[in-house]
Amino acid sequence: MSNFKPALSLDTINPATLAVQYAVRGELALKADKYHQALVDKTHSEPLPFEKIVTANIGNPQQKGLDQVPLTYWRQVISLLEYPDLMYKHEELAKQIYPADVIARAKSLHKEIGSVGAYTPSKGVLSIRKRVAKFIENRDGFPADPESIYLTAGASAGVASILGVALQKGDGCMIPIPQYPLYTATLAYLEAEPLPYYLAEKADWSLDHNSLLKTVDEGKKKGIPVKALVIINPGNPTGACLSHAAMEAVVQLCYKEGILLLADEVYQTNIFDPKHRPFISFKKVLKGMSEEVANSVELVSFHSISKGVSGECGRRGGYFECVNIDPEVMEQIYKMASVTLCPPVSGQVGVDLMVSPPLPSEESYPLWEKETSLIQNNLKSRSFLMAEHFNKMEGVFCNNAEGAMYLFPRIDMPPKAIEAAKKLGKEADVMYALDLLDATGICAVAGSGFGQEPGTYHVRVTALCPDTAEFIGRFGKFHKEFLEKYK
Amino acid sequence: MSNFKPALSLDTINPATLAVQYAVRGELALKADKYHQALVDKTHSEPLPFEKIVTANIGNPQQKGLDQVPLTYWRQVISLLEYPDLMYKHEELAKQIYPADVIARAKSLHKEIGSVGAYTPSKGVLSIRKRVAKFIENRDGFPADPESIYLTAGASAGVASILGVALQKGDGCMIPIPQYPLYTATLAYLEAEPLPYYLAEKADWSLDHNSLLKTVDEGKKKGIPVKALVIINPGNPTGACLSHAAMEAVVQLCYKEGILLLADEVYQTNIFDPKHRPFISFKKVLKGMSEEVANSVELVSFHSISKGVSGECGRRGGYFECVNIDPEVMEQIYKMASVTLCPPVSGQVGVDLMVSPPLPSEESYPLWEKETSLIQNNLKSRSFLMAEHFNKMEGVFCNNAEGAMYLFPRIDMPPKAIEAAKKLGKEADVMYALDLLDATGICAVAGSGFGQEPGTYHVRVTALCPDTAEFIGRFGKFHKEFLEKYK
Repeated sequence: MSNFKPALSLDTINPATLAVQYAVRGELALKADKYHQALVDKTHSEPLPFEKIVTANIGNPQQKGLDQVPLTYWRQVISLLEYPDLMYKHEELAKQIYPADVIARAKSLHKEIGSVGAYTPSKGVLSIRKRVAKFIENRDGFPADPESIYLTAGASAGVASILGVALQKGDGCMIPIPQYPLYTATLAYLEAEPLPYYLAEKADWSLDHNSLLKTVDEGKKKGIPVKALVIINPGNPTGACLSHAAMEAVVQLCYKEGILLLADEVYQTNIFDPKHRPFISFKKVLKGMSEEVANSVELVSFHSISKGVSGECGRRGGYFECVNIDPEVMEQIYKMASVTLCPPVSGQVGVDLMVSPPLPSEESYPLWEKETSLIQNNLKSRSFLMAEHFNKMEGVFCNNAEGAMYLFPRIDMPPKAIEAAKKLGKEADVMYALDLLDATGICAVAGSGFGQEPGTYHVRVTALCPDTAEFIGRFGKFHKEFLEKYK
Repeated sequence: MSNFKPALSLDTINPATLAVQYAVRGELALKADKYHQALVDKTHSEPLPFEKIVTANIGNPQQKGLDQVPLTYWRQVISLLEYPDLMYKHEELAKQIYPADVIARAKSLHKEIGSVGAYTPSKGVLSIRKRVAKFIENRDGFPADPESIYLTAGASAGVASILGVALQKGDGCMIPIPQYPLYTATLAYLEAEPLPYYLAEKADWSLDHNSLLKTVDEGKKKGIPVKALVIINPGNPTGACLSHAAMEAVVQLCYKEGILLLADEVYQTNIFDPKHRPFISFKKVLKGMSEEVANSVELVSFHSISKGVSGECGRRGGYFECVNIDPEVMEQIYKMASVTLCPPVSGQVGVDLMVSPPLPSEESYPLWEKETSLIQNNLKSRSFLMAEHFNKMEGVFCNNAEGAMYLFPRIDMPPKAIEAAKKLGKEADVMYALDLLDATGICAVAGSGFGQEPGTYHVRVTALCPDTAEFIGRFGKFHKEFLEKYK
């Protein structure tokens, strides 16, 4: 018999790992992958009741089965940077394929960056950070410092890196409920304390300032240092977009309590009614307040190329901007960034294309305009159509989204379904989502993965699926049968 | 007066952050950047004694100023994946630019992956992982399981993720001295205990098994659980390549003590004399041992596209393979990978191109062969030439490298230099490296950033710089003046 004693088991590994949960890619997603593979390979033992998997579980606009195509301008510029011989050695042929402004842009980026296969500075390419600063200035009307801007491998990497520097074990971090599970996952790993505040479902998922105050008080009562506050605006999974007044109150609270404000603003471009409910950045709100507040409150805001009109998730690009952060702490942020060497250069180029799209005067503009409008219109019309139909289903309530790319309908769960789920050792909405997948091939994440008021049940669906009518038809049919089964 | 109390200061942030050190991108690199910018902008107040910065501090083969160009085959395939219209809509023009096998490869990858702008599964694209498994099987003669292979954002991301799951606070992790500072940085952040073992400089930086045993004993005596052992092979910064016998002894030790073996094998392609000192993987050694050992010892091996003949650092691609890891722990590794969503797709494609280069029968092969041979030959001849000249300098000793892309010459530091450095509050080799930069523009990292036997001093230089003769001439002149100054 072996005397070997392995180093790794659930009892010996980092216990913080065990506490991490991440529903978006959990059991449901793995099951959906299995179904998908069985449909492709035709290996399932009995015929499945659907012909394809509809992936409404993850905001991944360019994935197979969805209809969002990459922006032509982006891909043209990047292809030239990947293979510069195209624009130098084969320039005559390239001119037959690429608009002149694309070639000029690629040449200029190539001159700045050099090879996209080389490490860049750990903060990212300086000239790109300068253009990010310009973009922020134009958006907000306040200056931005390229040295306070870090390019990142998507917003997730930025969030993980800032939380990892900012939070000690036991520190409190306020998070919205519902939230994007990156936050709870990262806090669990850091052994920090998530301090939930509830968004008001009855008021279009708006920010309930009293809930914020209550959470601060409760944290203090428990002796937990209330160190940071996460706001997702526009909201994921809620789609709600904050008003200027609500944001000012948040900044005021952060000033009063000395709380670091973390603004997840990755959906800032996905706004459905910009006239009546525009996106406003926390930087703009902060810098518009009294000098004392404007120069005090610590803010880190995050942006990404994965969402918006680009939807370039796989490229892993994004940035964060630090405002009013102690210079000594900034040095620590730099050091930690340097250990990861540099963000993917292809993602950095993506950030550049996001913050400086083609100008209206340029040859590429009309196509870029046409493609981005289609993406915006699709998202908006699908979101409204889906919400309308969710509200027609018995026992379902769904707020209209004001932005982002999700809906978060509430399911009034029949008591018998709750009982049945309990017997399975599952949350009722997890059972609902798994049943939905089994019956229809639709992959939607249970609300419990995002957090919800106790006793309520939700699912999150993306507004990215083509054939919305068919989608909602299948969903509605399942829902009816589910209610029938558990009535 | 303001009552504002900021959330973040050196006293309140994550204290683990403060303990992290990372010399490769520290003071020296920042100073070099400043000089570089001053040379470009011509802003330096007095003329500098050099015309350019020679970046010998970081293994970044494609950076500006070095002469390694990207592999044409790689860039051709990737450019087509970035802009598939090139090979579909503009196929006739593409045929005038690209070899037929490149177009076929890109079409096949495009069919498998879809858009490179979409998230992939968190482990990476399955078909790519299957080809990685095939590559490992062909290399080692033992089967590999695609489900135990994770594609990563470079080897660094893989190392950080495995250490982050494996190690609890206080766990011991054996690391070579000298080592690549990623390890000490990550261990510091995790509050794990680095347990140094010393490589034998006098014996070509070979692995001294007694030093390993001694480290295990010392760890045990201190009550530190000896959980993991890092081996870098070929070595960074040493360039030493392990023998089969030495590796077997390591595996045997891991078996006896139940230690997780972490094999950093990112330089496996950079081998100078493959006939006499070939690269052997730890997987191959392990699987060639008795069935009991082969099926027990826990191994994670890391590979990267940043080094080798591709040198595609900026793309952030790599993989790790897990062997004999508890399935429940594998689930935890999966969960943590899923929080980061997916590795950059462009890096995943890079891994594919690394593990399955063009075949000798294909049109692209001769150019690929020519380009990769040049890279290998340059690295080898520069490494030997540099070592030869270092050994000619007074008070310098340098082992020849057997692989990787660095040399780690020892500087017999004059006592007066040690005194002078102490007065500056610096290690003597840090002062040496800063003086070298000031005098010559050569950027080389002090040995203390990698660790060294107490009382010895080194610098790490890459073997990537063109004009080796000029490089070594400037270095030698500086060294002579340094000795003169402190004699």
